[in-house]
Amino acid sequence: MFQVIGERINTSRKKVQAAVADRDAEYIREDVKKQQEAGADFIDVNAGARIGHEKEDMKWLLNTIQPVAIVPLCLDSPDPAILEMAYGMVDRTPMINSISLEKDRFDTMMPFLKGKECKIVALCMDDDGMPLSSDDIVARAQKLVKELESIGLKQDDIYIDPLVQPISTDSTKGNMVLDAVRQIKKQYPKVHITGGLSNISYGLPERKIINRTFVTLMMDAGMDSAIIDPLDSKIMATIRTADMLLGRDNFCMTYLKGVRSGVIKS
Amino acid sequence: MFQVIGERINTSRKKVQAAVADRDAEYIREDVKKQQEAGADFIDVNAGARIGHEKEDMKWLLNTIQPVAIVPLCLDSPDPAILEMAYGMVDRTPMINSISLEKDRFDTMMPFLKGKECKIVALCMDDDGMPLSSDDIVARAQKLVKELESIGLKQDDIYIDPLVQPISTDSTKGNMVLDAVRQIKKQYPKVHITGGLSNISYGLPERKIINRTFVTLMMDAGMDSAIIDPLDSKIMATIRTADMLLGRDNFCMTYLKGVRSGVIKS
Repeated sequence: MFQVIGERINTSRKKVQAAVADRDAEYIREDVKKQQEAGADFIDVNAGARIGHEKEDMKWLLNTIQPVAIVPLCLDSPDPAILEMAYGMVDRTPMINSISLEKDRFDTMMPFLKGKECKIVALCMDDDGMPLSSDDIVARAQKLVKELESIGLKQDDIYIDPLVQPISTDSTKGNMVLDAVRQIKKQYPKVHITGGLSNISYGLPERKIINRTFVTLMMDAGMDSAIIDPLDSKIMATIRTADMLLGRDNFCMTYLKGVRSGVIKS
Repeated sequence: MFQVIGERINTSRKKVQAAVADRDAEYIREDVKKQQEAGADFIDVNAGARIGHEKEDMKWLLNTIQPVAIVPLCLDSPDPAILEMAYGMVDRTPMINSISLEKDRFDTMMPFLKGKECKIVALCMDDDGMPLSSDDIVARAQKLVKELESIGLKQDDIYIDPLVQPISTDSTKGNMVLDAVRQIKKQYPKVHITGGLSNISYGLPERKIINRTFVTLMMDAGMDSAIIDPLDSKIMATIRTADMLLGRDNFCMTYLKGVRSGVIKS
């Protein structure tokens, strides 16, 4: 089944930022509970938006969330010092968001990850910027898998983000990433594919239908995780339906549960 | 771009049957116009439901529709005598719906099709019934293509219907048809894949979200046509969006047109 990384606890979201600034634990806990009820498999926690406060905000967020968390957290920061603190605070093996091939990030994240038990989001980004072709994405994924395996991570713990790019600027950007995902999953069946989806619709109107049609295509190609808002019931309904159609929902049980709960509607 | 075969002019639909019985030309013409405005590439015409009246009903329907038809018709009958009459009445090269490998239908349709200029829907059905595996679908498609080519039809005029089966009875039925479509399109890139979609959701609630998520998956596999209701704006929006994401909509023009007309909504 598809793994949903709930993206809502991020201080770049206005209400979350206000709740963090006010130390409004109730607001944060309610949001986490709602994401879990809606089917989040991980709760992403990003405290990066209040400049100069990331460490204390992350600490407060983790202390606030842990008592209500029933799924693992996804610790989202570019700063290994903050990740080190966060890693020490969590009860369950976390996901780390993220490493990339950009030299600075790579060089600081590799020593942090070495020997740790965790899942890792690995972005197909390097110092040349975004990938320019399917082959480019695949080559970057190969490099990431090889490097992460070399420090002891298992393929099943690696979540490759192929970096979705806007279809509005170039009509081949959809097929580019779909082809790459197919190739990566063929070469590494245990490696997961994740990422944000909304870049695909950047610059176009009615973005949500684009995002949810795209997740269907990406799931067919092999994407088995995404960083999304689990309270967006239309994208969750699409994901549950696609899982069923792709043979990953025995007896349609998850689909039928979604219909009964009112999330899945025609 | 995806080719939509508009399914509404079918006497098995109550309102159409009443309009045909009453010889209500205005009703029929309005329906055809609406389907065309919504993007139908063919108008299916099926007069089979009033037992004993098929020939006269088909004749009346064609005479009624022709003056407003701006797209070709899809002549939908199992009876070659009726198809022969209908074929002689239409202005544009029609689609014929359908031939199959069932001995009776095959033996009557082959002489009818021989030497005719037309497009043909070819069902992967034989006297053993529905196909039981991907390989079974592919083998039937191969046989249909071979036979139809032998009487002069071009691959580009053949629309294979792989026969979608309910996911509720067997969770592998989605992948079965998706895999088959991939194989058929790989072997015959010019052959089209069409068919009804709604069988996939038979026996399940909230069927429309299943149908439109499924068409997205089928389009990724290679389906480039379907027999649907073009006035179902949600499935049309999904088809236009998937076409764009699969790189078949230059500058997102059809998508943007759909947004402006109000058909495509998040």
